[in-house]
Amino acid sequence: MEYKEYIEKFFNQGHKHYLSHISIDCVVFGFHENELKVLLLNMKNLNSWVLPGGFILKDEEMETAVKRILTERTGLTDIFLHQFQTFGGLSRSSFTVPELFFKNLQIKKDSWMFDRFISVGYYALVEYSKVKPIPDILSEKCEWFNVHDLPELAHDHRHIFDEAWQSLRFWINHYPIGYNLLPEKFTMPDLQKLYETILDRKLDRRNFQRKMLATGILNRLNEVKPGVAHKAPYLYTFNIAAYEKTLKTGFGFAL
Amino acid sequence: MEYKEYIEKFFNQGHKHYLSHISIDCVVFGFHENELKVLLLNMKNLNSWVLPGGFILKDEEMETAVKRILTERTGLTDIFLHQFQTFGGLSRSSFTVPELFFKNLQIKKDSWMFDRFISVGYYALVEYSKVKPIPDILSEKCEWFNVHDLPELAHDHRHIFDEAWQSLRFWINHYPIGYNLLPEKFTMPDLQKLYETILDRKLDRRNFQRKMLATGILNRLNEVKPGVAHKAPYLYTFNIAAYEKTLKTGFGFAL
Repeated sequence: MEYKEYIEKFFNQGHKHYLSHISIDCVVFGFHENELKVLLLNMKNLNSWVLPGGFILKDEEMETAVKRILTERTGLTDIFLHQFQTFGGLSRSSFTVPELFFKNLQIKKDSWMFDRFISVGYYALVEYSKVKPIPDILSEKCEWFNVHDLPELAHDHRHIFDEAWQSLRFWINHYPIGYNLLPEKFTMPDLQKLYETILDRKLDRRNFQRKMLATGILNRLNEVKPGVAHKAPYLYTFNIAAYEKTLKTGFGFAL
Repeated sequence: MEYKEYIEKFFNQGHKHYLSHISIDCVVFGFHENELKVLLLNMKNLNSWVLPGGFILKDEEMETAVKRILTERTGLTDIFLHQFQTFGGLSRSSFTVPELFFKNLQIKKDSWMFDRFISVGYYALVEYSKVKPIPDILSEKCEWFNVHDLPELAHDHRHIFDEAWQSLRFWINHYPIGYNLLPEKFTMPDLQKLYETILDRKLDRRNFQRKMLATGILNRLNEVKPGVAHKAPYLYTFNIAAYEKTLKTGFGFAL
């Protein structure tokens, strides 16, 4: 389908297929070489950056919709998603786009896309070198940005990103992370760097090691990192059973 | 307005005032004399128990809607609300009510109320003796139930309740609670009973005391509980500044 035809059908007929008033926004975090990145789309003819997002088909589970949206818009499949917050503010509701966008397009003034939307926010954490983002028909580009160097985002997407990052920072203080993000065998400094990147601050080495070992999710191997001549650090693996259990309960107080 | 007129207007005209496809469900937990209770409504002419819930007006913030719904349906005002999960399953969508409900009512077959709804879940924790629940025009009764002795709930409300309780149990392992639920001065056993009631299990006394004191949110007073002859327990107050700070960060690792 041509872009013009697609957009017109989407604006004029979309309400027949999708639930009105409800959208999905995804914050996809990528971890690579000790940098935290986020995946953004550049909308065609708008030159504005947005989070990957979309809508729920009338006969579709919400979780299925989220996975479909990420696959359609970014080429990503099978990634861990966490629902972190639903955004229902009034000020987010107006879908304001430049007049230019509608040039040469036949779009009804009462299109469902101009209605108010409540948006359900999900975030994901992926090893970014493993994924090949593909822009969809609506997007010019699909690119990773360092979280410290984001372009201006449309709508309230900066706010959604901020809340997602805060939620992720909270999450890693309470639940294990690292599995699927680190190699099978890793050192304590590797794990600390992952935490430091997400928390965006330096952590005390001894304190970190002590707390991490106390969680019981790590196995120290009888092996040190190869190729390090002096004081080579020990290698660790995750204790998968303990890791999975802690994913359910959180570290918390462990009262 | 009469019940019949109200219901007919709500089913036949409600979509003009409320956002379609989106509902709010509230799980209001009450703590009283070491029992955890939940507030339920009994719907008129249906004899079925439901969580207090409602819809968002087209020009209303979602948070405002939640507060309005709780006030309208239960008489509660100014209570702490926590958004815990949004429910988007397909199986929850069908609004099935007995034919009996519609007897003598003129309701359109394509009423917005028969559409699918995504529901945003909030929970609250209140000292239940302070509130006077008032049934609204739709409800026969508005009552507290012990969480261990709930009646059958309509729709997926049992699932929503279970998720809310799980979320609350998680919350108290990571964030302080007790302020507004306990008297200004309380003993360590009082605080432990609050945790035990919500967690629904016994906790080790020494371990609990040690972990609680380590959080830094408690001030031990130079006073013991009056009226206790032998080994009277010390009284505590919350350190409000530390309490408020920890409400933002959580206990977590404190990495």
